[in-house]
Amino acid sequence: MSLSSLSALETEIFHYIDAHQSDFIEVSNHRFLSFRPTSLLSHSSLPEQNLKEWVAVKSDSVQPDLRKEVIRMMLLAAARLTALGATVNSVSLGSQQVHLLNGQHLLLPPVILGELGKDPQNLTICFYGHVDVQPAKKEDGWKTDPYTLTEINGNLYGRGATDNKGPVLAWINAVETFRALKIAMPVNFKFVIEGMEEAGSLGLEKLLEEEKQGFFSDVDYIVISDNLWLSKKKPALIYGTRGNACFYVEVEGGDKDLHSGTFGGIIHEPLTDLIALLDSLVDPTGHIQIPGIYDAVAALTDEEKKLYESIEYDIEEHKNNSGVKKLLYSTKEEILLHLWRYPSLSIHGIEGAFHEPGIKTVIPAKVIGKFSIRQVPNMDLSDVKQRVVDHLENVFAKRNSPNKLKVSMPLAAQPWVADVNDPLYKAAKRAIKTVFGEDPDFIRDGSTIPIARIFQTITQKRVIMFPIGAADDGEHSQNEKISRHNYIEGTKVFAAFFLEIAKLRGLSHETSNPGTNN
Amino acid sequence: MSLSSLSALETEIFHYIDAHQSDFIEVSNHRFLSFRPTSLLSHSSLPEQNLKEWVAVKSDSVQPDLRKEVIRMMLLAAARLTALGATVNSVSLGSQQVHLLNGQHLLLPPVILGELGKDPQNLTICFYGHVDVQPAKKEDGWKTDPYTLTEINGNLYGRGATDNKGPVLAWINAVETFRALKIAMPVNFKFVIEGMEEAGSLGLEKLLEEEKQGFFSDVDYIVISDNLWLSKKKPALIYGTRGNACFYVEVEGGDKDLHSGTFGGIIHEPLTDLIALLDSLVDPTGHIQIPGIYDAVAALTDEEKKLYESIEYDIEEHKNNSGVKKLLYSTKEEILLHLWRYPSLSIHGIEGAFHEPGIKTVIPAKVIGKFSIRQVPNMDLSDVKQRVVDHLENVFAKRNSPNKLKVSMPLAAQPWVADVNDPLYKAAKRAIKTVFGEDPDFIRDGSTIPIARIFQTITQKRVIMFPIGAADDGEHSQNEKISRHNYIEGTKVFAAFFLEIAKLRGLSHETSNPGTNN
Repeated sequence: MSLSSLSALETEIFHYIDAHQSDFIEVSNHRFLSFRPTSLLSHSSLPEQNLKEWVAVKSDSVQPDLRKEVIRMMLLAAARLTALGATVNSVSLGSQQVHLLNGQHLLLPPVILGELGKDPQNLTICFYGHVDVQPAKKEDGWKTDPYTLTEINGNLYGRGATDNKGPVLAWINAVETFRALKIAMPVNFKFVIEGMEEAGSLGLEKLLEEEKQGFFSDVDYIVISDNLWLSKKKPALIYGTRGNACFYVEVEGGDKDLHSGTFGGIIHEPLTDLIALLDSLVDPTGHIQIPGIYDAVAALTDEEKKLYESIEYDIEEHKNNSGVKKLLYSTKEEILLHLWRYPSLSIHGIEGAFHEPGIKTVIPAKVIGKFSIRQVPNMDLSDVKQRVVDHLENVFAKRNSPNKLKVSMPLAAQPWVADVNDPLYKAAKRAIKTVFGEDPDFIRDGSTIPIARIFQTITQKRVIMFPIGAADDGEHSQNEKISRHNYIEGTKVFAAFFLEIAKLRGLSHETSNPGTNN
Repeated sequence: MSLSSLSALETEIFHYIDAHQSDFIEVSNHRFLSFRPTSLLSHSSLPEQNLKEWVAVKSDSVQPDLRKEVIRMMLLAAARLTALGATVNSVSLGSQQVHLLNGQHLLLPPVILGELGKDPQNLTICFYGHVDVQPAKKEDGWKTDPYTLTEINGNLYGRGATDNKGPVLAWINAVETFRALKIAMPVNFKFVIEGMEEAGSLGLEKLLEEEKQGFFSDVDYIVISDNLWLSKKKPALIYGTRGNACFYVEVEGGDKDLHSGTFGGIIHEPLTDLIALLDSLVDPTGHIQIPGIYDAVAALTDEEKKLYESIEYDIEEHKNNSGVKKLLYSTKEEILLHLWRYPSLSIHGIEGAFHEPGIKTVIPAKVIGKFSIRQVPNMDLSDVKQRVVDHLENVFAKRNSPNKLKVSMPLAAQPWVADVNDPLYKAAKRAIKTVFGEDPDFIRDGSTIPIARIFQTITQKRVIMFPIGAADDGEHSQNEKISRHNYIEGTKVFAAFFLEIAKLRGLSHETSNPGTNN
């Protein structure tokens, strides 16, 4: 960071953040307490509102017996936003349709809708984050207790440190800095904080639909900081995620499994048919064999291609992470293009066939192959489905088999992509340059992360995925961490981003489509 | 049966058998008791030695808690043979390597080696049978109690009625008839009666090896009556069973399963490789695609082909039993040839891939395909293995995949075939003609039933599979039965067979190979 190029305001803000690192990380004083309205907090034993205290809450949304901790975490987050001066609405989502052993339903944690500032001159940024976590136990292989934030060599280890408590607090810390320094808020803030992200964000989509004309009506931009950089060192902005079309291919022969001694050689075996169908899907180079499947894939533009050149990406490390010896491609560009912006087809397995160790000389009566095709712009799910069905029916017809074929697409999610030339991305890019001294990588994610697409599709607002965690943070793994550097510089980059967004006033209320390809 | 063509001896024997039907089936008198040596039977409560009494013993060798009933059944069978005048040796096999909940091993029932007659002028027939049964419970769908022999419309329902207590008793009844009528035994008898057939005949093969030069040294023929006719009405002799070569095809990529979002499109997926390998094995018509695999298959001779013409076989019924709508072949001959004397390849399933309901977007790291090839004369297992390995390695090499391929043959059993022109088969055929008034079907079994091949290979004696049960007896199923007709005429056919074998004296000690193709 070149301090000399900073504005006086930036210098003041960054200095404050640096000076209050320990406030943001661990218990050091009770400054926040003074902002807590007594109506919400009935006693003085309320935990401190910093990363150590948040990590200490076992807000695991996967295990039912920890649900009360998730709800406690939501109360804490609501109190923290209230202390910031926000008005907070904890929206109840009812109960989850999971029958517990004692016959009761499982209560869903509320979603927090927070609001801070309503200046009509300001743009409004809505921040989405979650404060539930993946399960973690010391005996899973953690070097430190997963619920005790522990600093080792500049890394802050603990469950939720990077996914997603750290980034949520970094955003709150950034807002807090403006408040503490009595600087006028450069933007209006909204918050959507949930507690079920690690368990499928139950109820969230419905809430967004309901609040489309309400809570979200005056939002300009939506920021999600629930991913990681591609690199350990170089910041990144994420502008796309692949969708996924999941398929079942069912081949049914008779009404019962048969013995291969008694029927082998005289019947059309359903599994043989299915194997042939699955073998027709993709060639050894990974190219999908379904006619026309690539027709709708957006052409690679020179501008887009250029984005890949500067990306910091360690092929060897990704290969080592995969455990495989050789990838299909050898250059960084080829690998990333095929992970992010081309479709891929993976066969996952077969239901109904013999799958145990050992051998069983069975001819299975009904087998269901499972595969999925990752979706990219501008593939259309119904078109993809039709092509898959046509192709498989065509291959099957040539086999002249009396068995019954049924192809279905039980699950499908569209891809998401944003326009990197949108002022929102340019603002984030400038904030990153200011804080980290370099331009971010513009990256995508090969996985299907529906959150950005859902926000964008439902609210019709521009969405940015703005991570502050590094590639090696180990979200969902043992020894999850965020580095002190990323947490503190991440706080600064959000503050700088607020200032950049403020400069966009007058630009953002245009009505162009938020995504180029959705 | 045309009584006019019977010899006086046959007439006397058959008349005796008809007159003693109820002795053979259910408790009616205590005639057998007079033959029981008091040394073996210490009290008079010993159950009657007829089919009803044998079926009443729950000699289920599959369920450990019924093992004591199997052992009781062996004692009964030993007593029955002793009462017949045989010397009986109950050979202990030790205990089974199965750890029970209480930490004890499970005792194996003994194998009974019985011997009746040692006239050097006579030929010696060794009869193999088993007196253990498959599990059975009324609630599985039995119309009657499975352990209470019940006659309905001429059928004797009960577990073990046809598999294998009925045929064992029919043989004993036939011997008993000669004894009761004080007719000199036309042959010397040996008996191998086991109690673990339904649980894999544990220990039997080892015993045969040990007794090869002892108990079996003076045996001329071995008779197994543990199968069924192909028809409900027409008798059959079985002269062949297919072998089986089971294969594992393992394709291994990295050291862990991967997510198809994070790695789909840039790696050689092991399951895609495996699907292609499996798809290379067999074409839609059931023809095996492994080069040279048919080279060793014995050519179909005109004489053999002729055997198929007269076979009574209901295609529609077999098709209905399979539950499939259309078979690969439409004529009786084609179907039976492909079930019995041509190899077939069935794919059974995949280990290591996703096999549950629903979808999991996984790229499995290591997958193992399982398939088997039914073996027929004169296929050689090591040759088959080499061809399979060569073929799969060849297909795999063309894919240029960095994954690791491993092909293995964890289980293999040779086929068995006997010469239908052997005097043994001709004698059985004549006995059948005498009793049933028609020639038997000469049939094979598409399944791998190792018992005949094991006896033949180890003892180097001629083996015949001589069933008396009908196609619809339902062995292993609910409502297992043997008809009164089959049980009683089966007793007669065994008696007639003894007389036919007696006529072979001087023929059988030639040293030709017992099987044509083994």
